Amino acid sequence: MARVAVLGASGYAGSIAAMLVHRHPFFELAHVTARSEAGARLDDIHPRTRVPMELESWDPKVHSGVDAALVCWPHRAAAPAVAELRERGVRVVDLSADFRLTDRGIYEDWYGAHGAPALFGQGVYGLPELHRERIAGADLVANPGCYPTAALLALAPLARAGLIGDVVIDAKSGVSGAGREPTAATHYVAADENMVPYKVERHRHTPEIEQELAGQGAPLTITFTPHLVPLAQGELVSCYVTPSREYAEEEVAGLYDDAYATEPWVELRLGPPGVLEVRETNYCRLSVHCDGRTNRILVFASIDNLWKGAAGQAVQCMNVMYGLGETTGLDGIAMFP
Amino acid sequence: MARVAVLGASGYAGSIAAMLVHRHPFFELAHVTARSEAGARLDDIHPRTRVPMELESWDPKVHSGVDAALVCWPHRAAAPAVAELRERGVRVVDLSADFRLTDRGIYEDWYGAHGAPALFGQGVYGLPELHRERIAGADLVANPGCYPTAALLALAPLARAGLIGDVVIDAKSGVSGAGREPTAATHYVAADENMVPYKVERHRHTPEIEQELAGQGAPLTITFTPHLVPLAQGELVSCYVTPSREYAEEEVAGLYDDAYATEPWVELRLGPPGVLEVRETNYCRLSVHCDGRTNRILVFASIDNLWKGAAGQAVQCMNVMYGLGETTGLDGIAMFP
Amino acid sequence: MARVAVLGASGYAGSIAAMLVHRHPFFELAHVTARSEAGARLDDIHPRTRVPMELESWDPKVHSGVDAALVCWPHRAAAPAVAELRERGVRVVDLSADFRLTDRGIYEDWYGAHGAPALFGQGVYGLPELHRERIAGADLVANPGCYPTAALLALAPLARAGLIGDVVIDAKSGVSGAGREPTAATHYVAADENMVPYKVERHRHTPEIEQELAGQGAPLTITFTPHLVPLAQGELVSCYVTPSREYAEEEVAGLYDDAYATEPWVELRLGPPGVLEVRETNYCRLSVHCDGRTNRILVFASIDNLWKGAAGQAVQCMNVMYGLGETTGLDGIAMFP
Amino acid sequence: MARVAVLGASGYAGSIAAMLVHRHPFFELAHVTARSEAGARLDDIHPRTRVPMELESWDPKVHSGVDAALVCWPHRAAAPAVAELRERGVRVVDLSADFRLTDRGIYEDWYGAHGAPALFGQGVYGLPELHRERIAGADLVANPGCYPTAALLALAPLARAGLIGDVVIDAKSGVSGAGREPTAATHYVAADENMVPYKVERHRHTPEIEQELAGQGAPLTITFTPHLVPLAQGELVSCYVTPSREYAEEEVAGLYDDAYATEPWVELRLGPPGVLEVRETNYCRLSVHCDGRTNRILVFASIDNLWKGAAGQAVQCMNVMYGLGETTGLDGIAMFP
Repeated sequence: MARVAVLGASGYAGSIAAMLVHRHPFFELAHVTARSEAGARLDDIHPRTRVPMELESWDPKVHSGVDAALVCWPHRAAAPAVAELRERGVRVVDLSADFRLTDRGIYEDWYGAHGAPALFGQGVYGLPELHRERIAGADLVANPGCYPTAALLALAPLARAGLIGDVVIDAKSGVSGAGREPTAATHYVAADENMVPYKVERHRHTPEIEQELAGQGAPLTITFTPHLVPLAQGELVSCYVTPSREYAEEEVAGLYDDAYATEPWVELRLGPPGVLEVRETNYCRLSVHCDGRTNRILVFASIDNLWKGAAGQAVQCMNVMYGLGETTGLDGIAMFP
Repeated sequence: MARVAVLGASGYAGSIAAMLVHRHPFFELAHVTARSEAGARLDDIHPRTRVPMELESWDPKVHSGVDAALVCWPHRAAAPAVAELRERGVRVVDLSADFRLTDRGIYEDWYGAHGAPALFGQGVYGLPELHRERIAGADLVANPGCYPTAALLALAPLARAGLIGDVVIDAKSGVSGAGREPTAATHYVAADENMVPYKVERHRHTPEIEQELAGQGAPLTITFTPHLVPLAQGELVSCYVTPSREYAEEEVAGLYDDAYATEPWVELRLGPPGVLEVRETNYCRLSVHCDGRTNRILVFASIDNLWKGAAGQAVQCMNVMYGLGETTGLDGIAMFP
Repeated sequence: MARVAVLGASGYAGSIAAMLVHRHPFFELAHVTARSEAGARLDDIHPRTRVPMELESWDPKVHSGVDAALVCWPHRAAAPAVAELRERGVRVVDLSADFRLTDRGIYEDWYGAHGAPALFGQGVYGLPELHRERIAGADLVANPGCYPTAALLALAPLARAGLIGDVVIDAKSGVSGAGREPTAATHYVAADENMVPYKVERHRHTPEIEQELAGQGAPLTITFTPHLVPLAQGELVSCYVTPSREYAEEEVAGLYDDAYATEPWVELRLGPPGVLEVRETNYCRLSVHCDGRTNRILVFASIDNLWKGAAGQAVQCMNVMYGLGETTGLDGIAMFP
Repeated sequence: MARVAVLGASGYAGSIAAMLVHRHPFFELAHVTARSEAGARLDDIHPRTRVPMELESWDPKVHSGVDAALVCWPHRAAAPAVAELRERGVRVVDLSADFRLTDRGIYEDWYGAHGAPALFGQGVYGLPELHRERIAGADLVANPGCYPTAALLALAPLARAGLIGDVVIDAKSGVSGAGREPTAATHYVAADENMVPYKVERHRHTPEIEQELAGQGAPLTITFTPHLVPLAQGELVSCYVTPSREYAEEEVAGLYDDAYATEPWVELRLGPPGVLEVRETNYCRLSVHCDGRTNRILVFASIDNLWKGAAGQAVQCMNVMYGLGETTGLDGIAMFP
């Protein structure tokens, strides 16, 4: 039994992380923290979490007395808290971007100065389907961004086979991806019946996807554009791959079967997957299409941006770190329709 | 371990019923049936159920070889199937209206001829909060309608205290309440950004609510109007009670505390409950307001129409029938936010 | 040709008011003002208005040089601006609540101190269907609240006939009714797939409805509860009337025919009206149902809360004030489906 | 004044076409036809059209006595009706795909046998921004598909400049694009909170886009994938162009300025356009982004699929055919927010 703190539990991803830890058979939820909502009960703010615990103000001395922590703070704010936790020996899964990138210059170009330079680059990239073994031995795991999760699961088999000559990634996300802070863009009247590309040419998940594709053998400059669509949770990534060489359709099918046949949280489908199919689950559903007419390979991946794209994956990583089955505390939680 | 069949498992309520039985620690899902979709796998039609079973055509000889059945067929069609199951000794929870009413004339006025006259009136009304003991010993349970569930939980404490002089029930439901059949009214473009009262003066849940209020000591003619609102699942019932006599606010508060303090699936809240708080759970959330200005008592109740309003309640009834804890197989299933 | 300023044109109602004045054949949009968004162009903030004008900071000296003004500011802030405009002889339609109520004590109970006491009670209540003649001669019109507009059009014929013994008003509104300010409640993720009663027992439109019903001959204490529903624009009011005396169904039908047969913006329908039918129009659609079973009279009214419930009605009032046809500048603007 | 019939006026596009013709200052709406809903009034089915006319069963003898017709029938069914109208000298804008393609083999590959072979290929492709002069003299105009409209407006300037080496078109549409027939896919519960690619590799708008791009000088094999998103009306096309040669950013900006500076229905924007901005208007909004990092050119185009993507464009074509200003009867119709 490991005692776990969830920092930033009042946000969307944080509250789900707290819920999953709270129900987990091998973890004990020891603390939940929040800034402006400290003092409130988590299940008053997020009733469906059913976590009857009071949100506390972050206090490193108090909250470092745990075995592990899930840090659900914004990038740049997360790094110093992670550093304090690590100094006290706490194992950390950090959901921010602060420990995902390994090239300092790239981090600074896209995010600015790092909040804990001594720890920079020390995180293991927390996508179990790619880095299971390294996560198992890690004390600091950098939980992937939501778009990179879906994009990398979609593209990794092709990357490893050297099949990606070029790729366009058109991504669509529900509004929870923009966070819980009320803004003009997340106002119901602005988002309802609307859809719009955002952060064109400059979304920060771009270098993260490129780093990890390079790690799989495909050093590429990708084109990545996210879009905001009118739904609460759900993310769909449409990948358009120009192959680097000739291939047989069977080869491609085989690559995906080899990669995912035994993965508990990745499912291959014949037809393109809708996001509702994976809502509030940790599943990523994929479909792969070899278009003979254009010679392109199309891969579609759908996830719940708050589950496999954030909190669910963080708990999956924790399961790996503690030697547990990867579905522990994550399955048997399902919804409808 | 009881073996259970779910008839009509391709519909919204049926698929959730199948999912809940499939995951239940004491029930075994033996069969799932469907008419037009027989042959398909349930988890292809409803992916999130995660029930990897083939839908079969209803065959009384085959499907009566179980201990219990949940019948999720439309009213009038359900009765003959229930009769066949009962003849073979199968315990039944019927989700249709066929066994809810006890006055034959009223049934015929609102529904037409009954499909199994010999069994008419043999069902125990399956609202555990009102009829727990009778359900425990029943072989045929008539699962309540969604609106009656919310309305009766909202009004029963007042009814028993003789406090209801008159009541207006304004109810609002998401689109899944209209069933899975595609119609002009359930087309996305018709329902989206719309809301509209329907079946004004003549919704069939009216006599059901009146029957059960009378059973609690309040023989009333109620005013009940349902409205369709643009969301998938969720039901809110707003009850406006004209009291029959003077009362103290503390008396009313006490009535609800007494009724629900130990109920696992009913929660009293200070402020009015939103439907998202109970989405995909078996909870009913209530708030009670004594309006000193108008002297009315207002009660709001929110449920998920497919859970506490249908499939969740059916499993709760099954738990009662089999002597299990009422939350068995129903908790630990939660979502976000 | 009258020159018109719209104060508070960056809000939802204000921007539509500006659009309608801008396209109006007899009005000239002279100024649009805003606070935090001064300097921006209105059609950048609200593209569909197609008003290519810059939002200015409110300057009484500059902006009083017009013939008329539509004031779209919040209550209490509006009154002083209205006073300044009136001092300079500008005719005003005020969309706030500041000049709707005629009883100072009631205003202060529900809103607090008034911002321009000398003018208190000087507004003519701007519901043309009730007060057409007084509006025609008015220099200060108090545009009704959205809920009172629908509720009064629904109930006035019964009120005048002395038929209302008691009434429950259950109202439902889209999210634009909560204003353009981003808040926790208007966040897409909070409002989507949700519905919830709000301001139970204490919504400020209550005394406004009571005042006007009294003016129609029905001094009542009403029960009024608004609900937030997940759509952008649209409002439905469900009125449950306990009649004060016996009546014939034909009498009721006659009352509504007499009241609305020649009204350009009120339409009687046989079945209950959905809000999508009147979206982005100035229409109010009504249906009246005499329920023989309960003896209640049910009246449903649907409007677009930003049109007939705010900006459209304000322009209708302006038309009356300037002796124009009441549909001028308001028809020929329609949408789909 | 030209007398105009709208065939298939009960569908989404047909009803808007009827509304626009009905309000048009130079056209007179002579007939509206429908199949299963003949006998009903159009404004009962589509209230906001405000067209108080009865839907008639198609009768070539009766309905050919007009000057022009807008045919809003499905492909393959449309062709024979168009032939009958043309035989009687009626000028036709056909909204189906039957007269868009000029290569018979390609038509048959994607659609099957043509319903009026003698007329095959006789239509002028009705995108005024590309074919204004030919439309002006045409008696048979083939109104473009919704996706081709947005995609061609997005890409034509680059195509004419020979700048497109390769292109990926990722398109997203609201549910009205699937038509008014209730189906499993258009059920509210299926479409709500969902998004999903559809007709991957095989959407019939593919050859139409290719034909017209070739006509602009860019004979390409395109990659085109549509997605269904949860909103009623609105379409966004995201185009990812791999340039065929080096270029300067100013060159690209100049191409779009030259193409659209004087176009009344195409607007260039700096930031990516949301679909809500153009809802229920005939506008297409475009943004063009030269991504220095990837060397790709990104073009985003948003339209209302039922307006510029169907009925609005058909009326724009009619305006061209009759020598009227292209905004006649199409502007001054706007909404909010």
